[in-house]
Amino acid sequence: MDCFKVNILGCGSAKPTLRHSPTAQIVNFRGNLFLVDCGEGVQIGLARNHIPVGKIGHILLSHLHGDHCLGLVGFIATLGLGQRTGEIVIHAHKDAERIFQPLFDFFCPNLSMKVTFQSFDTRKSEVIYEDDSLLIKTIPLSHRVPTAGFLFQEKPRDRHLLVEKCEALGIPFAYFRGIKKGMDWTNPETGEVIPCEMLTTDPTPSKSYVFCSDTMYSESIIPIIRGCDVLYHESTYSNIDTLKAHQRGHSTSVEAATIALKAEVGRLLLGHYSSQFQTYEDEKILLDEAQQIFPNTELTREQMVIDI
Amino acid sequence: MDCFKVNILGCGSAKPTLRHSPTAQIVNFRGNLFLVDCGEGVQIGLARNHIPVGKIGHILLSHLHGDHCLGLVGFIATLGLGQRTGEIVIHAHKDAERIFQPLFDFFCPNLSMKVTFQSFDTRKSEVIYEDDSLLIKTIPLSHRVPTAGFLFQEKPRDRHLLVEKCEALGIPFAYFRGIKKGMDWTNPETGEVIPCEMLTTDPTPSKSYVFCSDTMYSESIIPIIRGCDVLYHESTYSNIDTLKAHQRGHSTSVEAATIALKAEVGRLLLGHYSSQFQTYEDEKILLDEAQQIFPNTELTREQMVIDI
Repeated sequence: MDCFKVNILGCGSAKPTLRHSPTAQIVNFRGNLFLVDCGEGVQIGLARNHIPVGKIGHILLSHLHGDHCLGLVGFIATLGLGQRTGEIVIHAHKDAERIFQPLFDFFCPNLSMKVTFQSFDTRKSEVIYEDDSLLIKTIPLSHRVPTAGFLFQEKPRDRHLLVEKCEALGIPFAYFRGIKKGMDWTNPETGEVIPCEMLTTDPTPSKSYVFCSDTMYSESIIPIIRGCDVLYHESTYSNIDTLKAHQRGHSTSVEAATIALKAEVGRLLLGHYSSQFQTYEDEKILLDEAQQIFPNTELTREQMVIDI
Repeated sequence: MDCFKVNILGCGSAKPTLRHSPTAQIVNFRGNLFLVDCGEGVQIGLARNHIPVGKIGHILLSHLHGDHCLGLVGFIATLGLGQRTGEIVIHAHKDAERIFQPLFDFFCPNLSMKVTFQSFDTRKSEVIYEDDSLLIKTIPLSHRVPTAGFLFQEKPRDRHLLVEKCEALGIPFAYFRGIKKGMDWTNPETGEVIPCEMLTTDPTPSKSYVFCSDTMYSESIIPIIRGCDVLYHESTYSNIDTLKAHQRGHSTSVEAATIALKAEVGRLLLGHYSSQFQTYEDEKILLDEAQQIFPNTELTREQMVIDI
C-alpha cells in the first residue's frame, strides 16, 4: 500500500521515433494513478507497462505542445469505449478546455464518465491536488508557452509506535492512532503526561517526486523542489547545443544536473531527448555530461519503473 | 517507375493495441505517396515502413472517427519541424477543416508548407485527384458517420510498340509516341494508312486498388469497384458477430468476402480487426470464414507491402 513509483511511458521529444515516444508518465501513489502528460502513443505505453487504466483519475498536462498532449483525445475515447464510469480530472492551462472540449464532443460524444477540466496558473506554484497522504503542487517553468512542472509530495507519515512500551504503561489501544499522529498521552488516573517522543520513534521520511519538462534552466524552481527524492528534468540537448537549447526553451544535460545539485535532490532522471540522438550511445553523452556535475543521474527509457 | 503498391501502417480498429495500430496506409503510385487515413501512431508506422514522408502530397481521410484521423495533427506538426515546403492536400468530409484547422493553428503555427483542405461529398462517387496516369474516386460507404472509400485507378497504359515493324516501314521515331497512344500512321508519300493495331500489341492492363473502411455490407459499392485488382475491405468482426457488426456500422469477414465475390475483384485484403481478437489465431478465423466464399483473401498486418 506504500507504493510510490513512476512508469516512464515516453521520454522522447517532439518527433516520435522508433526509439522514443513523446512524453507520458504514470505516477502511482498507493494505487492512485496520475497520468503526467499524454503524448501521442500513450495508449501503447500504458499497454506495454500493464497499467490498469481504470485507476487513472487525474491527468496532468505540463503544457499544450503537441508532444505532451496529442494522445489525450484517443485516450479519452478509449476509456469511453471501455464504458469507464466516474470522473477524470484534467489539470492543465486554461486553454486546454477550449482546445480539447470540442474534440471530446466531436470524437467521443456520450462518454460514460465525466471529464472535468481544472485549470492552473503557470505563473505561480499552487496546490492542484490533495488527499490524506499526498499533495501535488505546480512548479512554474520557463518554456516557449505557459508550462508547469509538478511536485508530488507525500504528506508526513505516522510516527512509529513503541508498542511494548505503550502496553507496559497500560495505554489503551484506542489511543495508539493519536499517539502515532504526534499526541502525548495523559494517564487519566495519575494525570502524568507521557510525551509522544517517548512512545514513538521518528516516522519514515516522506517521499517526493518532481517532474520538470519542458523548461529552460531556471533557478527559480529550486526553492520548490529542494531536497526532493527524485527529479525528472528534461535534458533535450547535450552541452554542445546550449545555444540551441536556449533558443528553443529547453535544457541541456549540464543544466539539468546543475539544478539537481543546487536543489540537493536525491536522484536525477534525464529525458525528453532530442530526436537527433539516434542511438543509446548518443544519449549516453547526456548522462556522462550530467554525472560530471551530479553523479546520481540516470537516463530514463520507455518501460522504466522508478521506485521513489 | 511503374510502382503501384500499398504499405499497411495500421490495420486495427478503434482501440490501439500491442498487435495493431489504428488505420493508416500509404498508396505509392509511381513514387507519389498518398496517405490513406491517419490514425494515432501513424508516424511510427511511417518510420517502421521507411516511408519518405516528404513525398506524401495528399492525405485522404475516409471519415472523422478518431481511429482514422487522430494522428493528423502530430504528423503535420512533424512535417513542419522538418521544414517541409510545398503543399499538402487533405481530402476529407467538410467537417475536417472545421475540426483540424484550429488544431493546426494552435499546435503547429507558422508551418513551412501550405496545408489545404479539399472536401468531398460522401453521398456520391466523385473524382478527387487526377493526373496523367492516376485517377482517385471516392466510394460512398455506409457507416455511422459520413464515410467514403477510395478507388485508385491507373489510367489506360500505352500500347506496346512493335519497334522492328515500325522501323521496317520507315516510320520516323517522332511518331512512335502517338502510335503507342493509339494513333494510326499515314505514309506521307503513298497515303497508305497503317492501323495502330498492326504496329502495336495491347497495353499491359491498368491496375486498380480499392480501400473500403469503415463500412457495413453495402452492395451499392459494387458497380464502382467491379473488377478491381485488390480490394481492402474492413472485416471488424467474425460471422458470429453479424448482429454486433450491423449495430456498429461494420462488416464481417463473410460480408467482405461476399462483396469481393460479387464485384469480381482479383484479391481481397481484410483489416480493421476488432480489439477483441487477441492473437493471430483469432484473426485466422476471419480469414477462414472469408476464404470459404472468396479464396483469394489475405489478412493484412502492419508493415505488409502489397504490390497491386
